[in-house]
This record gives sequence, C-alpha cells and structure tokens, in this order.
Amino acid sequence: MSRLDINCDLGEATGRFRMNEDLGILKWITSVNVACGLHAGDPHNIRRILEASLQHGVMIGAHPGYPDAQGFGRRSMNLSLNEVYDIVLYQVSALHGMTRALGGRLHHVKLHGALYNEAAERPELAEAVVRAIADVDEELTLYALSGSAIVHVGLEHGLVVAEEVFADRAYLPNGRLAPRELEGSVLISKEERMEQASRLVLEQMVRTVDGSMLELAADTLCVHCENADVIPFLMDLHKWAKQNDVEISAVPYA
Amino acid sequence: MSRLDINCDLGEATGRFRMNEDLGILKWITSVNVACGLHAGDPHNIRRILEASLQHGVMIGAHPGYPDAQGFGRRSMNLSLNEVYDIVLYQVSALHGMTRALGGRLHHVKLHGALYNEAAERPELAEAVVRAIADVDEELTLYALSGSAIVHVGLEHGLVVAEEVFADRAYLPNGRLAPRELEGSVLISKEERMEQASRLVLEQMVRTVDGSMLELAADTLCVHCENADVIPFLMDLHKWAKQNDVEISAVPYA
Amino acid sequence: MSRLDINCDLGEATGRFRMNEDLGILKWITSVNVACGLHAGDPHNIRRILEASLQHGVMIGAHPGYPDAQGFGRRSMNLSLNEVYDIVLYQVSALHGMTRALGGRLHHVKLHGALYNEAAERPELAEAVVRAIADVDEELTLYALSGSAIVHVGLEHGLVVAEEVFADRAYLPNGRLAPRELEGSVLISKEERMEQASRLVLEQMVRTVDGSMLELAADTLCVHCENADVIPFLMDLHKWAKQNDVEISAVPYA
Amino acid sequence: MSRLDINCDLGEATGRFRMNEDLGILKWITSVNVACGLHAGDPHNIRRILEASLQHGVMIGAHPGYPDAQGFGRRSMNLSLNEVYDIVLYQVSALHGMTRALGGRLHHVKLHGALYNEAAERPELAEAVVRAIADVDEELTLYALSGSAIVHVGLEHGLVVAEEVFADRAYLPNGRLAPRELEGSVLISKEERMEQASRLVLEQMVRTVDGSMLELAADTLCVHCENADVIPFLMDLHKWAKQNDVEISAVPYA
Repeated sequence: MSRLDINCDLGEATGRFRMNEDLGILKWITSVNVACGLHAGDPHNIRRILEASLQHGVMIGAHPGYPDAQGFGRRSMNLSLNEVYDIVLYQVSALHGMTRALGGRLHHVKLHGALYNEAAERPELAEAVVRAIADVDEELTLYALSGSAIVHVGLEHGLVVAEEVFADRAYLPNGRLAPRELEGSVLISKEERMEQASRLVLEQMVRTVDGSMLELAADTLCVHCENADVIPFLMDLHKWAKQNDVEISAVPYA
Repeated sequence: MSRLDINCDLGEATGRFRMNEDLGILKWITSVNVACGLHAGDPHNIRRILEASLQHGVMIGAHPGYPDAQGFGRRSMNLSLNEVYDIVLYQVSALHGMTRALGGRLHHVKLHGALYNEAAERPELAEAVVRAIADVDEELTLYALSGSAIVHVGLEHGLVVAEEVFADRAYLPNGRLAPRELEGSVLISKEERMEQASRLVLEQMVRTVDGSMLELAADTLCVHCENADVIPFLMDLHKWAKQNDVEISAVPYA
Repeated sequence: MSRLDINCDLGEATGRFRMNEDLGILKWITSVNVACGLHAGDPHNIRRILEASLQHGVMIGAHPGYPDAQGFGRRSMNLSLNEVYDIVLYQVSALHGMTRALGGRLHHVKLHGALYNEAAERPELAEAVVRAIADVDEELTLYALSGSAIVHVGLEHGLVVAEEVFADRAYLPNGRLAPRELEGSVLISKEERMEQASRLVLEQMVRTVDGSMLELAADTLCVHCENADVIPFLMDLHKWAKQNDVEISAVPYA
Repeated sequence: MSRLDINCDLGEATGRFRMNEDLGILKWITSVNVACGLHAGDPHNIRRILEASLQHGVMIGAHPGYPDAQGFGRRSMNLSLNEVYDIVLYQVSALHGMTRALGGRLHHVKLHGALYNEAAERPELAEAVVRAIADVDEELTLYALSGSAIVHVGLEHGLVVAEEVFADRAYLPNGRLAPRELEGSVLISKEERMEQASRLVLEQMVRTVDGSMLELAADTLCVHCENADVIPFLMDLHKWAKQNDVEISAVPYA
C-alpha cells in the first residue's frame, strides 16, 4: 500500500495584504508550509496559521524564502552562501520557536520560490541551506524537489528527506519544473493534474514536456491554494486514493 | 560586595545601512541585547553579532521592537495585544533558535524603544510580552526598567527579572525616563554619568529631574554605543568598580 | 440640478500581494484615488491603475498615506510636522509626474487612513499637508472629510476643496466618522447606504449614530472596493441619480 | 580650456539608519545625485539633501535604483522591462516634483548600482530607462557610464548625455568598471586617483586593469562619500584644476 503526504504553502498574508488563501484547505492536506516573514507573512498571520494547523493536526513546516517581499521571493538575489545560511537560520528558528510555544513541534522545512529552485540546482547553495536547518534541529525533515541536488546534500548531512512532486506543474526532461513563464508550465485541467498525480504516486513516473517518461520518487505532493479549484481537486484526490489503496497521511517525524 | 551587569544594544545594522556600532565594546560589557530584524537588524548582521558575542563570553539577549524600521521602533503603533504577543513571540523565537544553533543559549529579553516604554507603563501590554517570552522559554531573564509595571508582571508570571538603570538618561520623579525630546534628557558629561551610575549601584538611588532622590533597584546598567565616549566611560566604570568593590559580571542564567 | 462625484481608492496592490480590487469599478465612478507606494502600491501597480483610469476618463488623484505598509497606513505614527510635509510632498510628486508622463494631469489629492483622520482633526497637521500639496501644484483639488479642519485650512491656503461624504460609514454627532473598530461603524445593508447617500446628496444631511441630523456638504461620495456588493450599489446609485435629476460627473479641474 | 563636473551620490540615509555621508562635501562638488526612496533614502532625508543642495547651488539629479533596500540596489533583480520603466518613472517623478516644490529644477538622472551597470550593458533595458526619463521631462540630462550602451540609447532618444568617469574605480579593457568584489577594483591611494582623474580630464584616456590605454569621454567625474579622504582628494582636485586650466563647473541645463 502506497502512502502520500499532501502539502500546501500557507501564511503568506502580510499586514492587511492578502494572497489567495483559504484555511478550509487544512481539512484536505496533511502538511503545511508556513511563510516565515521575509518573502511573505508576518508574525500575526504566521501565528494564526500555526494555530489553525495545530487544530487540524496537520504537520507544520517552515517555508523560508529570499528577503524580497516585493518580488515574493521569486527573484534570484545573488546572496553569498553565508547570507543564505543566515536567512534560513533566522526563518527556521522563528518558526521552530513559535510552533513549540504554541504547543506543537516543527516537522519540516521546505524552501520557497527562487531559493527552492536554486537549491535544487546548486549543491553549494544547498549545503548552506542544509547546514542551517540541521543547526536549528537535526530532526527536521527536508521537503525537496524530487531527484534534485539538495536531496543528495540533505541525505549526506543526515537529514531525513521527503521528495516532493507537483501535480500542477510541467516537468522538464531533467526532472526540473518548467519555469512559470513558459507556456504550459502550469497544468490547468483537473484531469491532467489527476493523471499526473496518479502516475507519480502509483508508478513514481512523470511524463515530461517532450513526452518522455521520467522516474521520480514521490513522498509528498504539493498543491497550490491559488488554483481556483484546489478543493475539488483535493476531493477527487482523496476519492482516487481510497480506490487505489493509497493512504493519505503525513510523513512521520524523523 | 555589589554586583553589576553592563548591557548594550547591538545588531542594529540592516543591509548596508549602519548604526553607530563598534564591536570593540564587547570587551567592556557583560551582556548584549541583539536587534531581531523588525525595527532593525537582519539575519546576516544578527548572526555576526551573535558569533562575536559568543567569542567574548557575553550573555546574549533578544531585543525585540515594533515592526517599524523607518521609525527605528521608537514610535507607538497601536498594535492589539495579540499582535504584541505575536511580534515578541516571533522575534524571541528567531534569536533563541539562532543562538542555540551557533552553540550558545539565549539568556534574556530586553524590549526596544516604544515597546520598552509602553510595557513599563501598561500592565496589560506587559502581560502580552511576558506571556510570549515565557512561551518561548520560561528560563529567560527579563531585563526591564527598574520599578516599572512590567517588572511586577514578569515576576507574577514566574520570570526572573533584572531591573535596569541608565547612567546617561535623566529620570522623572516617578522613575520613568525623561522622554528623549526633552532638553537634558540625555546626560552628556561623563562625570554626570559616572556619578549617576555610582549612586545607582552603591546606594540604589537616583537624583530625578526635579532634584528629588528616588530609590531604584539596579541589577543591570545600560550603556549606549551611540555615545561617542562610551569606551572611555566604560574604562572609568571598570576602574571605579575595582575601587568600590563592585563586581562587574553578568546576571547568571535563571 | 445637483452634481455628484463618486470616488474610490485604488492601486493598493503591492508586488504580488493583493487587496480586493476590481478595475471593473472604473466604469461606475468619476474619480479615483491612487495609492502612492508608502502605505500601499508600488510603481508597477500604480502605473497600471493610472493607465486604466486614463482609458476610462476618470479624474486621477494621489492618495498619500503614512509610510507603514504593515499597518496599511491605518495607524497613527507621531511624525513631526516636517515629516508629514515630506511624505506628502514625495507621494504627490511621484503621482503628479507619473500621471503627466502617461499623458494625463493629476486632478486631486485625498489623504489615506490615519493621515486622513488626523488632518481632519488637527489644523497644524492639516497645514503641513496643504502646504505640501500647494507646493507641488496649487491647482490640485483637495478631497477632504466634509466639514473637517483640513477643509478650512485648504481654503485658507487657496486650494479648491471638494467635501467628501461616505455612504457606508456611520457618522458621529460631530461630523467625524465612527471609528472602524466600533460596532455599526460600517453600514452593511445596501438600502441603508442608498438612503444615506440620497439624503447626503439631495439634502446635504446625515443621520448620526445618536439619531440626530447633521448638515454636511457633499461634493464627492466615497465608495469602497472591498464592499462585496459595491458594483450593484453603484448601479443602484446611477439609477437613483437619473430618477432624482442628479448629474454624476467629476469635480472639474480647479 | 577643459571643463569638469564633479558629482556625488547623497541622500541615502533611511529613517535613523545612516550611510557615511557628510554634507560638507557640497562645497567641493558641482552636482549631486539624490537617492529616491527605493534602494535608499526616505522623503525626510531626501528633502533635507535637496534643500542643502539648493543652498549650495549644486545641480540636482535623481539617483533611481532597484527597489531593494536590503541589498542597497546592488543586486540584479530580473525585473521585466515594464517594471524597469515603472520604477524609473516613479523615482524620477518624485524627485522632479520635490525639487520644483522647493524652488529648484531637476537637472539630471543618474542610475544607481546594479541598474546603472545593467543599463550600461543591455540596450533594451537602457531603452526602458531612457523612455521613463524622457516621459517625465525630456530636458533632463542623463549621466551615464562613459562609452556604454545607454549613452547611445540616450542620444538616440534625444536626451543630452554627460559621460561619467571614475577616479577611484579600476577599468576593464572594454571600458566597464571592474566589479567591486575584484581585488584592486577600488583605488585606495589618493595619488593613483589624482593620476587617473588627471589623465581622464586632460587626455580623455584611462589605463585599464591589463595596462592598456583606453579612450573615454569625461564630462563628469564621480566621487564617493564613503571614501574616508574624499574631502582632501577634492581639495587636491580643485588645486590641480586651477594649475591645469580646468574649469570645475556643472554641466549646464539641457
């Protein structure tokens, strides 16, 4: 019997500014990645999301990004490796302490945006990230792009790694996500997304943009709140899981 | 034999922007209050200060303030009590985790600017602050304006409290600091500061702006980096301590 | 025949963060107040709103606020009068130049949030604001809370002033808006809002929270995008105007 | 007789945060580039610098940069060309209006940091910048890296261009500045800087990092406040100018 964790990014509201977020999603997912205040989020909204996540029994992760709220952490920033270490250390520390203060325990770390993508490519940057995570708490699980550089770096440094796949993003033949600015990089149709999810979970395979099939580990599936039909998709996913003997449950603590 | 802790605010640089800070001061003080990234400071500069403080064996405290870099945390902000709890929780958590990751242990919390002053006056705001600190780590020592509202609130909630006094600030007859915008609120002459420090430590008394004498507990003395002659003042203070059998040493861990 | 200008605040999106804004509203209003980048807005979103407003032939105003994005300009900030002058000068200058560069001409200035409310009460703060506006362009029209202090200050300094009323906010007996945190301060029902608008425009009167009637000049009516039914309300308002021989048109250039 | 304009970046203080700036430099220079509030500067400090510059009769320029205060505008940001247009439009508009409101007239625009360097290399980015400047005021002079792409783009669009050289930065054989992170990229010795300045002004030549000589137009020379000996250097420069029949005076209005 396969197991599938479903994760989603939350906590991106900042002051009175909002992203498309609906806490109703917490009923349908098993882990949550909470923005940490640099690319998005502020202490007040972070605390609200942490409390709601604890109430729903969802596993809580820190979701650190580049310190660029204007660009929502999606722009490269040419930080030094020391600066990368520092921003991850700061953000994971904040979420680690807040979660414990509220009666929970931080479970994982998933990078955001440009930092996520760059750590998937550049081992030396991945290493700065992994050191920061392990220095805060070596029992944190690393959520990382399936098959990417940081997966190997995380394992080498003794972290438990959950390999992450996407149902709504197109894959390049090398296993990287097709960049958002590329046409067709975001899968719109619910059927396509269900098909991609199903193949990933049951066969650990994905069809890439050139039609070739690629093998990919699939420990956790990312869904996006900004998809208008994310809740219906999640309902379908749960139904499909039941039919296919897939257990939807969180990655256990390391 | 009296004991005196000397503390100083550091870590206020942000990006390439600088405040007047000289790490040379770490040789002359026993505890440091590190800005946490909201009113001042950023992850890179915070980490640098933490490492330097650990090297010098100085006790490390978090120095949380209002989220107002433009106003350097010196403006009132009308936050709700929940928001006050949240910003303190976030900032203390960040420093707590970073200090431990770097091999140390966070020792205390001292509020900054308008938050410091308002928590000294308003018990319900003080209570939001104290709960946040205790929720992160109930063994943290609270540095607080000697004799003020938050001293009592901290003690009631089981925190160890170090009562703080100032050598370079004039006192009102009610024990509050004279507001910075008042003429004479900042003591310029080194002799005056030495005299105020000496009376505070040896007699636990201060002469207020109307000439009356006031009793004040003096566990820790705050010095300010922005005073041009802070190092000569600290040298004099150490000399004076030797002559008067005062031990300059940190407040022990709670 | 009465005339009524309808204005709305827009341009508050910042980076990828959004407020509830629908440019479809431009068809139903006659003037727009564009956030200037300090409490909300960024150069990219400001330019988009300016272009859309020019296409719709709507009068463009600058909507300056306190430099507090986190608090969305709704918190008091204790700025000095010089600082108030400076922030208004900066923001109005930016919008003035941008509007002209895009082929238009800036028409008015309406303050935002706490700055709006404080300038309505404090003549010396109003004077700092008015000087800044007049120093940029003395032909700018000032939109200001009907009957408030800044109306008089603006007139004394030679500005044309359009007195502003609200259909969706409750009034205190002294003509100020009931604070948002007060229950009943925001009128929810469309009927109540239509009734208040109708009385304001036709009779220049409003019923205040204690039931008394108050006389108020009504040159321009503010509507809020965040009201879910703002478009239906505006449709009703246009129908009502036709029936009551009220011309909905912008305040002409000064 | 040669003519030399000397320019310097100012206005970079933000809130209580300071860069190394000494307004005493205004006596020794002929034009000033004022930060516009995105990478550095705030309305209050901008106004102070504008007033001081007007008192000293120095030509005032806008100094727009990327919206990245944390990185001080020195990091690439992958903005779209529309976004580049927008941020330049916003910043130049703000300074244009403020300068006029204070009784002056904006004279020029000089880009800052990464934006300066990228516009020197990429004609399409330079074009977005030049359009924004001309849309605000086509009589603004463009200060631009001597011999670079944006010089040509500016001239094509009808702007007057002042070609800028540096006494304290090493040049690559292609006429670009050696990147700051390169050893030897910043000339420390006053003698070297005087020699480079002299050759640039008298011969319109510079010796590059590989020893070769390169021809460069030199309309305006940039000096940096952060150089500890900038005032002595400027005194030497004025003396040298007198001896060599070089007139130190601003670039006239276009």
